[in-house]
Amino acid sequence: MSQHPTDGTPRVVLPRTGIGVDVHAYAVDPAPDAVLWLAGLAWPGERPLEGHSDADVAAHAAADALFSAAGIGDLGSNFGTSEPQWRGASGSVLLAEAARRVREAGFAIGNVAVQVIGNRPRLGARRAEAAAALSAAAGAPVTVSATTSDGLGLTGRGEGVAAIATALVVATG
Amino acid sequence: MSQHPTDGTPRVVLPRTGIGVDVHAYAVDPAPDAVLWLAGLAWPGERPLEGHSDADVAAHAAADALFSAAGIGDLGSNFGTSEPQWRGASGSVLLAEAARRVREAGFAIGNVAVQVIGNRPRLGARRAEAAAALSAAAGAPVTVSATTSDGLGLTGRGEGVAAIATALVVATG
Amino acid sequence: MSQHPTDGTPRVVLPRTGIGVDVHAYAVDPAPDAVLWLAGLAWPGERPLEGHSDADVAAHAAADALFSAAGIGDLGSNFGTSEPQWRGASGSVLLAEAARRVREAGFAIGNVAVQVIGNRPRLGARRAEAAAALSAAAGAPVTVSATTSDGLGLTGRGEGVAAIATALVVATG
Repeated sequence: MSQHPTDGTPRVVLPRTGIGVDVHAYAVDPAPDAVLWLAGLAWPGERPLEGHSDADVAAHAAADALFSAAGIGDLGSNFGTSEPQWRGASGSVLLAEAARRVREAGFAIGNVAVQVIGNRPRLGARRAEAAAALSAAAGAPVTVSATTSDGLGLTGRGEGVAAIATALVVATG
Repeated sequence: MSQHPTDGTPRVVLPRTGIGVDVHAYAVDPAPDAVLWLAGLAWPGERPLEGHSDADVAAHAAADALFSAAGIGDLGSNFGTSEPQWRGASGSVLLAEAARRVREAGFAIGNVAVQVIGNRPRLGARRAEAAAALSAAAGAPVTVSATTSDGLGLTGRGEGVAAIATALVVATG
Repeated sequence: MSQHPTDGTPRVVLPRTGIGVDVHAYAVDPAPDAVLWLAGLAWPGERPLEGHSDADVAAHAAADALFSAAGIGDLGSNFGTSEPQWRGASGSVLLAEAARRVREAGFAIGNVAVQVIGNRPRLGARRAEAAAALSAAAGAPVTVSATTSDGLGLTGRGEGVAAIATALVVATG
């Protein structure tokens, strides 16, 4: 699936870009011991998200961006009901397995960039820690940034947290 | 518009990345024979979207990502009121014409990656078919993935479907 | 942080991709002389946005995409309360400083692509002017495109304007 332009440009294998968005709702009535997981880290004292696995939107968006770049499906097709062993797996475990599958499909991973959109938690103080956790999972540089949506939309109203990621991979064949 | 770093890196032409988002609402009172078009495919039995042309948000986002990467405008400037012959054209036709214009502007297309965000339809079973249809239209690899937004936002409330795409192109000059 | 695939592909430094989203609300009760700033341009007669600095979502998304690609934080960590001299700075000034910091961190900037999502203003007639303004600020090609969200979501309801950007950088080390 690599692209070799045939019109005079150097015959370099072009990298491929991918995209992934994920959204999870804050838990309405969380268990007393429930903990927020976000960007590969536990956030004690913060309201948890709920949903698929640990609801780590940043790790999920990163994994989906990698699948998207490589063209090998998405979280649902890779870790859905057909593979019940991934049910409940942490976002970091899913990201690591996504990266493994992308490499197995014949790609090297250049980088992944994830932006978290939400009111809480404030990622700033733990941004480097989050990037290190996700980079370790992916085996490639994963950058983490954050923003809010100025009180608007699902994240601004505090209904949940969104994440958006882009990834760059290159065929190694 | 290609970039040649002048600081010691190899003089390789850098590719360019682009971004495109599109949203369409489900038809409120669709004609009995109206059919949903999404990702280059007809989806009989699914509630149709309505809007510009066939409201194929995936094809539109892919086309806009290509325009964005090449810097030659967007769907509105390319296929708007100034060019009425595109009114009602299918998403695949618009994507094919967008790809042609990007190449005419001096770029080779590396890849396009599209993620569909919505409750319905479930793309999983037809993901490969959708990717093949959009890839044929673009004349380049287009990957297709899908997610939901956990019941939140315009897609979670079932008001419509969104798509987000990124593209990579490289100047061939 | 550059990637050198070790599996037989040419030893080319891979570029890195980044992502940035920004949202600002329309001013509820703007001062009589308040002006909308968007994509590096003043838009007299259009309803202003309000928020951080001049609320230029396009310039902010572009800056965040650059920070994201380079892995050096985000608008909040770079221009937040710890650096009060940036309070009130225009979006163009923030984008120029973001580009400077990305280069200082060892990257050349390939391109930035920004898409504005909103009902107003209509960017079409000033798209080239906006791209020129943001490109001048970044010292690299910045493309500008626009779309609406078909009456849905925070932008469709006219609550505010969103922008989404992707950027490509490459290590120069």
